Order: sequence, then C-alpha cells, then structure tokens
Amino acid sequence: MAETRTTYFSNIPEIAYEGPQSSNPYAFKYYNPEEKVGGKTMEEQLRFSVAYWHTLTQDASDPFGAGTAQRPWDHYSGMDLAKARVEAAFEFIDKIKAPFFCFHDIDIAPEGDTLRETNQNLDTIVAMIKDYMKSSDTKLLWNTANMFTHPRFVSGAGTSSNADVFAHAAAKVKKGLETGKELGAENYVFWGGREGYESLLNTDMKLELDNLASFYHMAIDYSKEIGFNPQFLIEPKPKEPTTHQYDFDVATATSFLYQYGLQDHFKFNIEANHATLAGHTFEHELRTARISGMLGSVDANQGDPLLGWDTDEFPTDLYSAVLAMYEILKNDGLGRGGLNFDAKIRRGSFKPEDLFYSHIAGMDSFAVGLKVAQKMIDDRFFESIVDKRYETFNDGIGKKIREGTTSFAELEAYALDQKQIDHASGHLERIKAGINQYILSVNFL
Amino acid sequence: MAETRTTYFSNIPEIAYEGPQSSNPYAFKYYNPEEKVGGKTMEEQLRFSVAYWHTLTQDASDPFGAGTAQRPWDHYSGMDLAKARVEAAFEFIDKIKAPFFCFHDIDIAPEGDTLRETNQNLDTIVAMIKDYMKSSDTKLLWNTANMFTHPRFVSGAGTSSNADVFAHAAAKVKKGLETGKELGAENYVFWGGREGYESLLNTDMKLELDNLASFYHMAIDYSKEIGFNPQFLIEPKPKEPTTHQYDFDVATATSFLYQYGLQDHFKFNIEANHATLAGHTFEHELRTARISGMLGSVDANQGDPLLGWDTDEFPTDLYSAVLAMYEILKNDGLGRGGLNFDAKIRRGSFKPEDLFYSHIAGMDSFAVGLKVAQKMIDDRFFESIVDKRYETFNDGIGKKIREGTTSFAELEAYALDQKQIDHASGHLERIKAGINQYILSVNFL
Amino acid sequence: MAETRTTYFSNIPEIAYEGPQSSNPYAFKYYNPEEKVGGKTMEEQLRFSVAYWHTLTQDASDPFGAGTAQRPWDHYSGMDLAKARVEAAFEFIDKIKAPFFCFHDIDIAPEGDTLRETNQNLDTIVAMIKDYMKSSDTKLLWNTANMFTHPRFVSGAGTSSNADVFAHAAAKVKKGLETGKELGAENYVFWGGREGYESLLNTDMKLELDNLASFYHMAIDYSKEIGFNPQFLIEPKPKEPTTHQYDFDVATATSFLYQYGLQDHFKFNIEANHATLAGHTFEHELRTARISGMLGSVDANQGDPLLGWDTDEFPTDLYSAVLAMYEILKNDGLGRGGLNFDAKIRRGSFKPEDLFYSHIAGMDSFAVGLKVAQKMIDDRFFESIVDKRYETFNDGIGKKIREGTTSFAELEAYALDQKQIDHASGHLERIKAGINQYILSVNFL
Amino acid sequence: MAETRTTYFSNIPEIAYEGPQSSNPYAFKYYNPEEKVGGKTMEEQLRFSVAYWHTLTQDASDPFGAGTAQRPWDHYSGMDLAKARVEAAFEFIDKIKAPFFCFHDIDIAPEGDTLRETNQNLDTIVAMIKDYMKSSDTKLLWNTANMFTHPRFVSGAGTSSNADVFAHAAAKVKKGLETGKELGAENYVFWGGREGYESLLNTDMKLELDNLASFYHMAIDYSKEIGFNPQFLIEPKPKEPTTHQYDFDVATATSFLYQYGLQDHFKFNIEANHATLAGHTFEHELRTARISGMLGSVDANQGDPLLGWDTDEFPTDLYSAVLAMYEILKNDGLGRGGLNFDAKIRRGSFKPEDLFYSHIAGMDSFAVGLKVAQKMIDDRFFESIVDKRYETFNDGIGKKIREGTTSFAELEAYALDQKQIDHASGHLERIKAGINQYILSVNFL
Ligand SMILES: [Co+2]
Ligand SMILES: [Co+2]
Ligand SMILES: [Co+2]
Ligand SMILES: [Co+2]
Ligand SMILES: [Co+2]
Ligand SMILES: [Co+2]
Ligand SMILES: [Co+2]
Ligand SMILES: [Co+2]
Repeated sequence: MAETRTTYFSNIPEIAYEGPQSSNPYAFKYYNPEEKVGGKTMEEQLRFSVAYWHTLTQDASDPFGAGTAQRPWDHYSGMDLAKARVEAAFEFIDKIKAPFFCFHDIDIAPEGDTLRETNQNLDTIVAMIKDYMKSSDTKLLWNTANMFTHPRFVSGAGTSSNADVFAHAAAKVKKGLETGKELGAENYVFWGGREGYESLLNTDMKLELDNLASFYHMAIDYSKEIGFNPQFLIEPKPKEPTTHQYDFDVATATSFLYQYGLQDHFKFNIEANHATLAGHTFEHELRTARISGMLGSVDANQGDPLLGWDTDEFPTDLYSAVLAMYEILKNDGLGRGGLNFDAKIRRGSFKPEDLFYSHIAGMDSFAVGLKVAQKMIDDRFFESIVDKRYETFNDGIGKKIREGTTSFAELEAYALDQKQIDHASGHLERIKAGINQYILSVNFL
Repeated sequence: MAETRTTYFSNIPEIAYEGPQSSNPYAFKYYNPEEKVGGKTMEEQLRFSVAYWHTLTQDASDPFGAGTAQRPWDHYSGMDLAKARVEAAFEFIDKIKAPFFCFHDIDIAPEGDTLRETNQNLDTIVAMIKDYMKSSDTKLLWNTANMFTHPRFVSGAGTSSNADVFAHAAAKVKKGLETGKELGAENYVFWGGREGYESLLNTDMKLELDNLASFYHMAIDYSKEIGFNPQFLIEPKPKEPTTHQYDFDVATATSFLYQYGLQDHFKFNIEANHATLAGHTFEHELRTARISGMLGSVDANQGDPLLGWDTDEFPTDLYSAVLAMYEILKNDGLGRGGLNFDAKIRRGSFKPEDLFYSHIAGMDSFAVGLKVAQKMIDDRFFESIVDKRYETFNDGIGKKIREGTTSFAELEAYALDQKQIDHASGHLERIKAGINQYILSVNFL
Repeated sequence: MAETRTTYFSNIPEIAYEGPQSSNPYAFKYYNPEEKVGGKTMEEQLRFSVAYWHTLTQDASDPFGAGTAQRPWDHYSGMDLAKARVEAAFEFIDKIKAPFFCFHDIDIAPEGDTLRETNQNLDTIVAMIKDYMKSSDTKLLWNTANMFTHPRFVSGAGTSSNADVFAHAAAKVKKGLETGKELGAENYVFWGGREGYESLLNTDMKLELDNLASFYHMAIDYSKEIGFNPQFLIEPKPKEPTTHQYDFDVATATSFLYQYGLQDHFKFNIEANHATLAGHTFEHELRTARISGMLGSVDANQGDPLLGWDTDEFPTDLYSAVLAMYEILKNDGLGRGGLNFDAKIRRGSFKPEDLFYSHIAGMDSFAVGLKVAQKMIDDRFFESIVDKRYETFNDGIGKKIREGTTSFAELEAYALDQKQIDHASGHLERIKAGINQYILSVNFL
Repeated sequence: MAETRTTYFSNIPEIAYEGPQSSNPYAFKYYNPEEKVGGKTMEEQLRFSVAYWHTLTQDASDPFGAGTAQRPWDHYSGMDLAKARVEAAFEFIDKIKAPFFCFHDIDIAPEGDTLRETNQNLDTIVAMIKDYMKSSDTKLLWNTANMFTHPRFVSGAGTSSNADVFAHAAAKVKKGLETGKELGAENYVFWGGREGYESLLNTDMKLELDNLASFYHMAIDYSKEIGFNPQFLIEPKPKEPTTHQYDFDVATATSFLYQYGLQDHFKFNIEANHATLAGHTFEHELRTARISGMLGSVDANQGDPLLGWDTDEFPTDLYSAVLAMYEILKNDGLGRGGLNFDAKIRRGSFKPEDLFYSHIAGMDSFAVGLKVAQKMIDDRFFESIVDKRYETFNDGIGKKIREGTTSFAELEAYALDQKQIDHASGHLERIKAGINQYILSVNFL
C-alpha cells in the first residue's frame, strides 16, 4: 500500500484562494477559508463536507452504461481497495481543504458473507480512518448505513415486507451508531432510499409506517444507551429508486414524525435535487424546515429541471446558492450540520482532476452565495420588502389577528361595509432585478 | 322566470339504468341506483354530488380563450341569472338523479358592492334553494366560500399579506357556516386556492401559516357557537393558481394540522387531479388519508398525466375508479362525505347535453369501480397478496417487531450470522393482469 | 451444457389459451393465437417479439441497487453463459409461443479485448442461434448494435466527439448487418441511446448531426452492398441516458431525415414509454408516423406517468393497447415490423416465473386491444365521429379548401359578412364512455 | 381623449442608463443603448420589442381569478379604450426606449359583429398607430392575427374541423398581411395556439395538417401578390391551450415544413418558456434553429421549471440570457427579428409602474447576457473547448468521416484490432465554474 498521502493525486497541488481574476483551475476564486463574512470565517460558515461515495467509490455508471471513472486506485480490490480509498480520501480532503466528510458503511468497507464479517471489515477501516483523522483537520459530519444497494433491500429496510430484512437493517444501524461514536460524528442520517413502495397494489402501507417508526424509536434508544448523542437527520426524497418514498419531502416527513411522536428527535438533511424532484425549490424545503426549527444539514447539489431523475450535479447555480445561504444564515447557521457535496461528476468528467474541478466549482458557488446573502441581510433587502408587505398586521385589526385575539364576529363587523381594499404590489420583477444586482456586485463585497 | 322545472333541458329525459348493452346516450349502462353492492344500494355507496360551479356557472373559458359553453340561461344576468341557475340546477340534479350537490357562495349569488349586499343576495338565493330542496331528493354535501376569484384575494385569504383581506375572508366563511347550517350541509370544505405563495422572495411563510391556523381555529369556534356541526374538510392541491399552495397534499396538510393542534378537527376532501399534480396517484392520497383516519370526501375527476395543470376532466379511467372505490370501501365508505364531480366538460363539449353525457360517463365509471372493487374485496384479492407478502411478521422476530417488543441488540443477535434472506417475488405484473381480468368481467358481476 | 430445451424452466408448462375465466397463471386469458380477428389470426396480427436483453440478460439492477433477478443460468460466465442463455431463450420463446425475438449484439455474446475477438464470439453464438432457429417457429424481428453501454460510447457513437469511436461504431453496425442477413432479420433498428448530448456547453451539435447522417448513409450503402434488405428503423427517445437525444420523437427524427435526404430509407420503431417521456401519448407517436407512412414497428411497453425515467413496464393498460392497435390496424398492420416487448420485470419480480407472468400479461393486454380495436373499426366508431365532425369540408368552400383550389381573397369574400359560425360539440366525454363500453364487452367479442 | 403622450404614466420619467451602482428603480443598470458591444450599439444588437398584449391589453387574470391589473385607461371601453391604449403604448415605448413593438389584431382594436366591422375598427386604429409612429423612433417588429381567443376557434383556425372557421381565419391573416404592409412590419408571426388537438379521439390529424399547409401556402401567395415581403415566422409551442399543438418545437415544425415543401419560406420565432414546456432548454431551441439557418426572432421571457404551464415571466435569469445571446451572436444577430418581451407581469405586480420595472429587469438581463456572451466569444471560450474536444476529426480517419469519404469497410479495418480508445474528459463542472466567473465579472467589461 501507499506510504505517503500524495500517491493518488500527485500532480495536483493543494487548492488555495487566488481571487476572482485567477484562471488557475486548481485555485479558489471566491472561497477564501479565512475571510470573515458575517462575523465568522467562510470555513466556519460553510462547513463543507466531501461525500465519500461520490468521490471515492462511485464509478460514473448510469442505467444504460458501465462506469467511466478513471481512478488511480482502480487496480485494487477487496480490503486493499478499501484501504487505498482511505488514503486517497484523506489526500483529497486535505488538498481541497474540506473541514468535514461523510460516508455510508459500504462506501468504506466491503460486505462479507455475514454481517459479522462485514462488521469486522468495517472495524479495520474505521480504525484506519480514525488514525488518519489524527493528522488531518477534517471531521466526520455524518455517517449512515446503506440500506438500498444490496438485493436484500429490494422491498425496503425498516419498511421491508420481510422481518429478516428489518432485523438486518437494525443491526446495520446499530453498527452505524457505534461507528459514529467511534469517529466523533456530528450527525447520523437516514435516507430511506427504499423506504417506500414500488406499487401500492401489493403494499401494506400502514404496517410499513408503523414498523419504520419502531425502527426510529429503537435507534434513539440505542444511541442513548451507548452515550452517543448525534443530531438525527432525515433526508427526504420523493422517489427514485422507489416509485414513492415515504419521506417524500420535509412536510411529509414532518407529518410522519408527529403522527408517531418522533418530532423532537429529528431534524432534516435537505438535498437540493430531492427538493426539485418533489416539485419544490431548494429554498422552499429549507424554509419549511427552518420555520419548524428542523433545518439540520444540507446536501449541496443541483438537479436538471428538465430531467426527471436525481442528477446530483455539483452546485453551480448562483441563484440557488444565494437563496440557500440566506435560509442558512437566517437559521443562525447549520449548527452541527454542514454543506455536504452529495454531488457526482458527470459521466463525461471521468478524470481524477474532475473531482477537484467539481468541488472547487461547488465551493466557490456557495462562497458567492454566502457573501451575497450576508450583504442582503446586512442591507435588510428581503426584510424590508416583507415588513412593508405585511405592515397591516402591525396594528388595529391586523395586530389582533396576529395575536389571535379576535373572532369571526368581530372580523365580520369590520368587513361588512368595507367598500374597497387597497393592496400594495408585490413588485416581484423589481425584486428579481435587485437580486441580479447583488450577485453581479459580489466582486466588490 | 320559469314556472316548471323542465324549462332548461326540455329535450332531455330523466336518466335511467338500461344496462351495458344500451346505446342510448341518455341512459346509465352500469350505474343502477337501486342495485345492491356490498350490502347497500349503489346510490348509498356512491353518494354522487353535482358541482354547481362546473355545471351551472362555468363558461368553458381557458387562459387563451373566451367561454364556449352554450347554456339556456345565458340571456339572464344578475339576480335573474342566479335564480335561473337554481331552477336549472334542480332540473339537472333531478334528471341525473344525484343525491347531493355542492357550491361556493359566489356560484349561487352575485357579489354586491359590499359584503353586506353580497350576503343579502345570498340570503335570497339560499331561501330559494331551501324551497327547491323540499321537493327534491337531493341534499347539500358541502358548501364553501370562494376566496380566490376576486382580485382582493390576489395574495390569499387566510394567508393574505393584508389584514383587511383576512377579515373579509373570515366574514365570508362565517356566512358560509350559517348557510351550511341553514341548508343542512354535511360538510364544510376549505380549498386554499390562493393560500400559498407566488414567490418565496416576498413571503413571510411563518406568519402566513400562523394566521391560517388562527383562521381555522376561529372557524371551528364559530361553528360550535352556532350549533352547526359539519365535518370540516381540507382539499389539498400543490399549486395552481399559486406557485406553491400550503395544502400541497394530504401529508403536507396533516403536518400543518399537527403543528397547530388542529388534527382532530379536520378530514380531507381528496381530488384525483390534485393528487397527480402533486406527483401522487389518486389512490396514494386516499390511502394516506385513510390510514390516518382522515379520509372524508372525494372530488371525483381525473387529470391528463401529460399536462401540467388541473384539467378537472370527468372521471372515465376505470383503473382509477376501481382503486379509488377499493380505498373507499376499506374505509367503510365515506361517512358524511361523497363523490363530488369537481369536473368540467372540455371546452369543445359546449352543448347543454354534454353536461348529461359527462355526468353519465363519470357515474357509470364509478359504478364499475364499485362493483369490481367489492368483488375483489369479497375474493380477498389484495388482502391475500398482502397477507402472504408480510407473513414473516406473524410470528418469531417479525411478531416482536410488529408489536414493538424488540431492540437493536436483539435484532443484531438475530441477524449477525444469517447467511441468506429468502424473498418472495412481488409478482406485480401478475397482479396487474389479475386486475384487468376483474375489470373485464364486470358485466358478469 | 444442457441437452434438451427444458432445462431452465422445467416447472413451467407451455402457455396455452384458456379463456377469460381461467385462473391458471400459466395460461392466456385473451390471447388465442389461432383465433381470427379482422380476417387474420391473432398471431399474424400481433407479431409478438421477445426482447433478448430484458428476458435473458438484464439483472434487475437500478441506479441505487444491485441486480435482484434470480436466473437458472446465473452460475455460468463468459461464453458458457452466452450459450446457456441461447438455450434458455429458445425454451422461453417456444413456451410463450412468440413468433419473433430481437437482440443487441452484446446481449448474445460477450465482448472480447478487440472487436475482432468480439466478432468471433458473435460468430459462435450466431451459428448456435441459427441452429436453434431451425427447430423453432420463431424468427428474428430485428437485431441491433449496442452502442451505449461500453465506456467508449460516453459521448455517443455516430455522434461521438472522438473519431475512433465513430469508426468502432461503424464496424459494429457493419457486423450487425451481416448478422441480420445471416439470421434473416426483418428489420434493423437504430436506438441512439447516446446520440445526443450531456450538455450543449461543450457540444458541436451541427458536426454531430452531420456525422450521424453520414453514418446512416454508409449503413444503407453497406446493406445494399451485401444484398441485405431489412427495413431500417429509428427508435426515438427524448432523453435518458443523455440529457437530450437527437431522435427526440418521431417528428424530430423525421425533420433530421428530411434535412439529410434520408426520409425514404427509414421507418420508425415506436416505444410507448419513449413517447410519454417526450410528452406525447403512445397513440400520438403512432399516428404521427402512420400519416407520414413511416410506422414500422413497435416496442410494446408502458411507463409510469408520475416517474421521469424509462420504466419499461410490461404493457397492461388496456386503453393504451386499444388505441395502439387501432393505429396499427389503420396502418394495415405493421408489415415487416412487430410488437416487441421492450419491457422488463419490476425489480421486485425477480423470479424466473415472473418472465412468464409478465409476457402473458402483455400478450393478453394486446389481444384485448386487438379485439376491441377491430370491433370499433367494424362499427366505424371513430370514423363516424370524424366524418361528422369534419363534414363541412365535403362541399362548398370546405371542399375547395380540402382540394387546395381557393385563395385568401375568395375566403375573405366568403367570411367578411358572416354573422355566426355554428359548431358541433366534440362530445369527448361521451366518446370516452363509449370506449369503456367497448372494452368492458370484450368478453362477448 | 388625452392630448399629450404623458397622460398615463405621468409620474414616471424616461428611463436612462445609470450603471450597476444605481438604486433608482427607473433606471437601467446594464442596458446602455449607445454603448458598443461587438462592434454595434446595444440597441442594434438587442432589438428589444414591447408586446402590446401584455403591456396594454392583458388584465392579469388567471384560470382561478379575475384581473388585478390597475391601468389608467381602465375607465374607457370600445374604440375609446383602443385609442387610449395607443396613446399609452407610445408613451410607454418612448419612455422605455424600445426600438420595436408587436401586436395581434384584437390587441389594438375590438371585434365587431362581422369581420367587415372588425376590419373597419382595425383601419381606424392602424391609421392612428401609423400617425404616432411618425413622431416616435419605434418600429413594428411583427404583427399577427389572434386566432385562439374567440369561441369560433375552439377547434383551431387553419386546422379547424369547420370550414367556415378556416375561411374566417384566412380572412384575418389576409388583413394582418395588409396591416403589416401598411405599418412596415419586419416579420409576420404564426403562433398556432389552437392548431392542434384537445384529443386524438375525435381528430383527423392528417386532414388538419394538410389544411394548415394550404393555409401557409395561401399566406405566402397573398403576401407576394400585395408586394409585402416580411420574414414569415412560426412560433412553436408544445401545448396549452390545446393538449397537443402541431408546432410542438422547432424540430417538429421543421418536419412539417419539409413534408409540405414550405421549408424555404419560414424561420422561427423562439420563445424561452415554450422551449422549456417542450422539454428543451431555451438555448437548445435556438441552436436547433440556428444550425438549420432558421433562427428568425425571439420571444424573450422565462418559465418556472416547477410549473407545467406557460408563465411568461419577464426574463431575469442571467444564465439563460448569456446562452441565448451566445446563440444570437453566433447567428450574426437576429437580422430582421428582435427580442420581443412576450412576458407578463405577475398577477401580484398589478401597478402601472410594474410595467416599467419588469421591462427594465428584462432589458438589463439581456444587456448582461450580451456583454458576457460577446466577451466569451472574443476569448473563444466555448470555441476552444469544442475545438479541443473534436480534434480527432481534423485529420486521418476523422477527417475522412467529416468529409464523407470513407465507408463501413474502411472503418472496420481501422477499428478491428484497436485495443483502447483514449477519451478526453468533458470537464463540464469546470466549464460551469468558468461561466460563473464570466458573469460575475460583467461589471468590469
Ligand atoms: Co443526498
Ligand atoms: Co440526490
Ligand atoms: Co376539487
Ligand atoms: Co381540480
Ligand atoms: Co424504454
Ligand atoms: Co425500446
Ligand atoms: Co410567445
Ligand atoms: Co408563452
């Protein structure tokens, strides 16, 4: 195995900030980790995380084609491959300067013939990762159990139609919590990739949801039992691979949590592309979670609005980055969460250097988003618009409505002989032009 | 004004059941009101309702074109038009044999210069309707207040950015509850057509949702105050006319109800086309409500899956009708709810007789749906599939999971050395072929 | 290797017609090969074809999960696997009674290190298939070259950004034409899975289309050269795996063919799920091709209208089957084309018997479609509606318009003082009810 | 009637360029008409046009609500209203400094009882417009006939099922061509809003397309006859108001034009929102038309990718503006075409000043688009990427492919023993980051 951490990307330098005029592809143009924005460094505000699966594991295959990714560790297999990936991971993370990383269990170690063997593989790699973390500045944002790839999960995990699968899944999450504790994870994520149905025609939806709630309750119990206190996160997605996923979106998952008394134990990990697949904007999902006090973490990526599947593109849309960072800043940041690049290079971007290009693209985009959003908050751009638009709720009948101290009878008396209601225009087009002006002035911020 | 009830559709007979071989366009081929299915008459099971707005009021305009509908009452205006429509309504309802009807306030009476005048108009027409109801077998399934058409509702009603609009809306619902009481309505419906946002950029979502919750609480309070006890129904829709509607779907509205402590006061009125616009099947929304005990009533229509707006077509898809009736039968029927044809004739179906053709099409489709679904239940078609598929939850570790008496530790011990999990196939293609066989045999049921 | 043809599905009998009352899962309920409909046997009318890739090769993986399919030939690999699949294929085809089958080159034989080795593998298996065909009634509907799975096709084949890939693709199609000749294929299909772009940002669309046209011209030339005269078919698809596919739909491909002088050399192979992904109904694509004289063959499957990817489900929707068969019958049948089940079992239908269940489901559905469509044609159901609706074009000014013998000046003179135009209603709801009546009476046909 | 041109927007000044730092809502921040970009003034490059219907006529109604627009000419009706709108139009156009405007016939004058009366109304207003044009710098980009609003067009115009409607439509286009000639229009546009079908079930698609082709041929003939030589433009749209529109997209309309020998007589007017409704990007449609030599003019707007209908928003997305301007510049500009704001204020932007805000937003966005696109062309940003990516077509076998001088046999010989094909990465993420850098530096251009 490799002896130093520079084996895999030896021709690629550490990525440093060079500013907006730089044409160096291996430099940040907007992300300046030490620069202060809104009273904190950009590094503290943005809490970027590298996704192990997309960066180290995935091969850029698609449903109609084999993998194209060319990786310097492709010649390894089994546990050797797993170890090579750890080395490559830390080299990558250190060079790209990511303060966090994330993984699923099977991203880091291969499955054995039994779960016991799988766990032994995990133990080996977790120990290795723990060792590497000592000499790196990166931390574990979250880990999770992959409960969707193996054929046993064909009908789900916590919602499987087969009790043995439920048991197997429980054992995997148990190990995941132990792993998280061992590596000091900030969060534990549930993405229910197959917790849903292929067809309602052969599905007992009620039983499946009951079981899923039991699953979550047991996870919380076990976590307490071992003295591990991560922030639990649900990552909603409406569909794909299943026809319908139970955690369709933030509101749907919130409904589930309330119906099963779980609402105080979870926040959300919100992915941009999952938002749009559900028919929402990214900022809608962030807002929905934020006003319920449930915005926990973010999977930073973007989709293609003309495609009906999860493209998990690296986020480069500045509008989306600005509005996401606005929600995050209004949330007083992400707390223990972070901005995880759950994003994969395009199948045509198959070279190792594309891993760097794509992370730089994403990090720079969110840096622009941060700077612009903070400036808008400093200027009270949105706040002024909203204050003005809702000003009738500040006194008189409006204040009573806001405070819940009126009644239909009083409101009717107020309204019955009113001739005309004056409305203020929403001026949406002017607002959009204003946002453009803010974005285009980022180089002056 | 007309003297008898046969003025408007004089060339159209009462619609009677003639059976599947009939080629009479003015006859039912499958809907036989007196025929017993599942222990009740089809009339009792299906509880069909005529939507006043689509049948009496709408003109078949669309965003790019003026109305095409040719109605025998087009030459009237103002209160005369309102009265003519009442006469036509009862003639239509009686001929089509609908046991129920529904309306919005402005469907039945024109607005005046003030709400006081509007209410006076309403009083006149409500009295007329009450009088007509005495000599008809039809009843009022539900009424509601239209809080989306008038420009004052440009930013919503209970979620308006303007307190005066909130007050006006409250007064309209107050009147709506009084009207419902006067006419003996079974339900009161809230469809929040503009309770949402055009853009998040100028919206205080938190304030709007808080206000909406207050609005609902006041409606419940006032209803109690006047001794009117309808079933309150929320009708979800994801979007259109707004960009985003707060009652996106059943799950979203459930989340809202729980967060504001309203969950015991509401059930849902589920519309097929709203389900599909939200990315769900009709049966998914029915199932979601059913297993939460919140399936209240149904707006029976269908959408065009290739179009991105609410087409509100008359329901003729037999697959959808069968699966909807399955959910309804498993719900022990709709209780105080019904199957309301919130469906409009196509713009090219502009003749008065098309109102009959389209209702016959819808009623026959749901009659087929009822007969097929009841037969499938009698045969335990779906139940057998589900029982078999989930049988591992009947004993052993599965029973413990189902009963919530296990733990991660016990489950891990169970799973750790297991080599292989045997799955049963879902056989979905065979199930679909089976459904076809059931449908195609309806003429033998 | 196996000695008889009954090794792989030994517990499954030959599938025979038993009629609509049968509950035998291994029997046809509607498809009766010898029964005459419209003057021909159902076998002649429907020309069913088994797709080698879905039935013999695919493993039921999806983008988030490994394969679940359990196949009796899974223990083989390399050429042994290829041979086992041939044996299984003929056993399956014979038991299901499919008159045709189809394949891609890599479905039947593994790739070697060079194309020369690949072609040698192909030669071995083609010889074996040819031998098996002697004792089977099945024929080759079409073959094609897979130019999308291997990483070399990452940027397309005939539209690759790399000339070496173009050359490789040309060599594969050359071999494909030779294979087609050897096995007596009726058609040769081009599905341009990667003939399109991932992003316009790095694409020379003009060059790619020019090259694609050259590719087709060379294919035609070579086919003539070797005396092989298949019907050439283009199979349109709008996207997936690429972001945009050049053969988006029938109209787009027609535009391409005309612009490059290729319109007389191609017809279309129309897939239902590709139609809906393009925003069209299946019948729309069939109609568009039919009225241009370009309806060649059909990939019979169906999609899920709520999912944005190609689900390739077995076709069970009877509405779709009826309307497809109507177009096919009005086309005087499919000529040299057929109904190919480009359809895959759901990932949860992983047992060998599901291959039978799903084909039976599809064949029975199209048999119903055929019987209903033929009855409607016999009754002139649609023809009467259309004749009536367009009757003003039968004489007077309408006849002149139809015959192209009028002018704007004459038409203006006709229209200038006309007060009112009388329209007939389209009665769409009544038409839909009529279609239901036809379908529900299929057991009497 | 008003005496001067400043009656309607008296509180709004002429809009002037003030630069990116300006916070004056009534100023351009990026659009500087006299500034030279790419050798021409921005005014010459951009050729902005005001859409009469959205600015003067529409009332901001939607399918669920009455109009909200507050316009200073609302108190007029009939011909007085038409005249007031002309005055307001010229005041608006002059203040916003639009070099062009566009209209449908019924935007400018009310319909009479017969077409003869309608034409008389038109004559009056056309004379008035002609008079106003003398003292304004604006010109008529195009006019067209509205053949979708009136109920007579329920089944289309040139594709109506009723010959009388075809005649009426022909007479309207005849008048439209005369109007265009009278006012010196540069183009004549056909948007076939109802040239399609509500349902294929009662449609004779072949007859309708034949008739439409005759219609176009007669339009060309009549235009020649009167010595009017506009550029004829087809504006594709996939659907809405119809279920399916025959001019679905550029490729579909091209196929139609070729099949009926019309391809040399038409170019396209491409609307951004129609592109996305068809499943394409705006730039895809522009590119498709450009490489066929058929890019004629542009309807500059944008849609909401999460909504399934034509929102016709003012264009503010800078990505879209940059890529559109890139295509336009590569086309050597739009020739006789222009950038027409077929865009409407949101229903909540109902004040007169919103008309100014929204046009400023759109004009500034396209000014940014122009400057960025020109800079990218000057730098050969995209050209360098494409040259490198396709370099294998510059010599050897690639050159032969490009020149069409090879054959399948030669290509097979080349490919047969090739071991490996080296691909260059598409580096898409780096390209996207580069575009961001260009956009964010616009203030330095
Ligand atoms: Co994610
Ligand atoms: Co994703
Ligand atoms: Co409804
Ligand atoms: Co609806
Ligand atoms: Co497909
Ligand atoms: Co296919
Ligand atoms: Co337009
Ligand atoms: Co539009």
